[in-house]
Amino acid sequence: MRNLDEKTITQAVLARNAETADRRLHQIMTGLVQHLHSFAREVQLTEQEWEKGIEFLTAVGQICSPVRQEFILLSDTLGLSTLVTAQNHRKPDGCTEATVFGPFHVANSPQYELGSDLSNGLPGTRWFVQGKVRNMKGEVIPHAQIEVWQADDDGFYDVQKPNLDAYQGRGVITSDNEGRFHFRTIVPEPYPIPHDGPVGKMLEALNRHPWRPAHLHFMITAEGYERLVTHVFREGGEYLDSDAVFGVRSSLIAEWVEHPAGATPDGENSADPFFTLDFDFVLNAIER
Amino acid sequence: MRNLDEKTITQAVLARNAETADRRLHQIMTGLVQHLHSFAREVQLTEQEWEKGIEFLTAVGQICSPVRQEFILLSDTLGLSTLVTAQNHRKPDGCTEATVFGPFHVANSPQYELGSDLSNGLPGTRWFVQGKVRNMKGEVIPHAQIEVWQADDDGFYDVQKPNLDAYQGRGVITSDNEGRFHFRTIVPEPYPIPHDGPVGKMLEALNRHPWRPAHLHFMITAEGYERLVTHVFREGGEYLDSDAVFGVRSSLIAEWVEHPAGATPDGENSADPFFTLDFDFVLNAIER
Repeated sequence: MRNLDEKTITQAVLARNAETADRRLHQIMTGLVQHLHSFAREVQLTEQEWEKGIEFLTAVGQICSPVRQEFILLSDTLGLSTLVTAQNHRKPDGCTEATVFGPFHVANSPQYELGSDLSNGLPGTRWFVQGKVRNMKGEVIPHAQIEVWQADDDGFYDVQKPNLDAYQGRGVITSDNEGRFHFRTIVPEPYPIPHDGPVGKMLEALNRHPWRPAHLHFMITAEGYERLVTHVFREGGEYLDSDAVFGVRSSLIAEWVEHPAGATPDGENSADPFFTLDFDFVLNAIER
Repeated sequence: MRNLDEKTITQAVLARNAETADRRLHQIMTGLVQHLHSFAREVQLTEQEWEKGIEFLTAVGQICSPVRQEFILLSDTLGLSTLVTAQNHRKPDGCTEATVFGPFHVANSPQYELGSDLSNGLPGTRWFVQGKVRNMKGEVIPHAQIEVWQADDDGFYDVQKPNLDAYQGRGVITSDNEGRFHFRTIVPEPYPIPHDGPVGKMLEALNRHPWRPAHLHFMITAEGYERLVTHVFREGGEYLDSDAVFGVRSSLIAEWVEHPAGATPDGENSADPFFTLDFDFVLNAIER
């Protein structure tokens, strides 16, 4: 311990960390220290580069706020979020796939009745969404809680706006006795992830764009089933092949059907063209 | 790119990062992404653990301030700083070894004449430090800039104190024509690294103490020589075998000699016992 060098330091740190009684923490820290050190050795990290790394991580932390989570953006853009999501949701074929959570979910999203306008007055192209929640056996799942959140017509989430009065484009509905749900909202557009901070600078240095393809977020929970966090993407939309956060799954791309002006699914008459989406979710039963 | 899973995500991220023209950045990001993903795979990181990691890193960033650098503490306590220092200063035998920089250096430290009191009035046991700066051939190095910083009697650096009026226990002196330097200060005590933040919580969870053995920081620069950042540790002091930041080198441990009350090296008479240190620094010439 009195003569550590570039060869002996790793084992010394591992030995020091071995004193904890928390075996899982020990396992995680061992993997972390080994890979952190191997990384620094392999690239022969210089002191100037180490300093830049310290400055970068500090800037990432300092820009975080109750409405901005830059470390999640960093994890997303480095593909770590997709990896962690994937390895924690190995589902049988036929279940709806999960994808990244993203940084724009909020707790205590408003509750709505089936058929409500979840955009809560956002301007944009009307969109009628419906579907069914079921399990692998084809049985419907009544009273599933379906939480939805989305970007608006300009590619922003409500929480990104200064002086937010009321949530718009997010809410919770509950499937009916036959597992069905329906609501209306507006068509969300592709958007760049927040790129005015350190993660944006990183993407620029890497010559990467910050855009995500258009999508609608879903989080579905029902007793006896694994929670599903996912998106539904728009078939034919931009950036499906270069999502900045590596979140696209083929099985989650669906047609957002355009309709001419006229009768809408909720029985009204639209003076403008509108869209519909029909998408079913298949939940994975928790084994007992 | 439309069907990434836990097996294909890493290559997809590497491919996306390959578009940058900065080849060194590309190399660093490739190593980083590979090791980050391997870590998450090997420990089979769960979503809850990932979330805790995000929260931890955010807290580390949020506690940083102009006088607190928690990410350097994190790097130090994980042994990364020692590794990076070691691999960037492979010196010929006989040169003074480098060690960690630490988070308490400040730019624009005050300039002092040789023989000055660098403690700038700190209470404590008087300490007279002297030595010589030379090169591997034994030639003296005149006009070397010698920057010193240290903890006080209570184990705190000046910059850790609220309402700091003037720097205490830090300063810059210059070696004379014969490469000699001398100054007085007070004997620094062992201290715990700041442990009221997230890094302190991490050490606690790992059942590790936050203490560093007593030491004096030096940064020595001279034209034609590699900059030397190092410490001198106190022989026989506590924590030499368990430095929280893995900074001890045998060659940097020296006797801090205690003297009874009486005549001091600066020709005064001390009513209390005092200490002396004699330590020479050997700089590494930059090859041309």
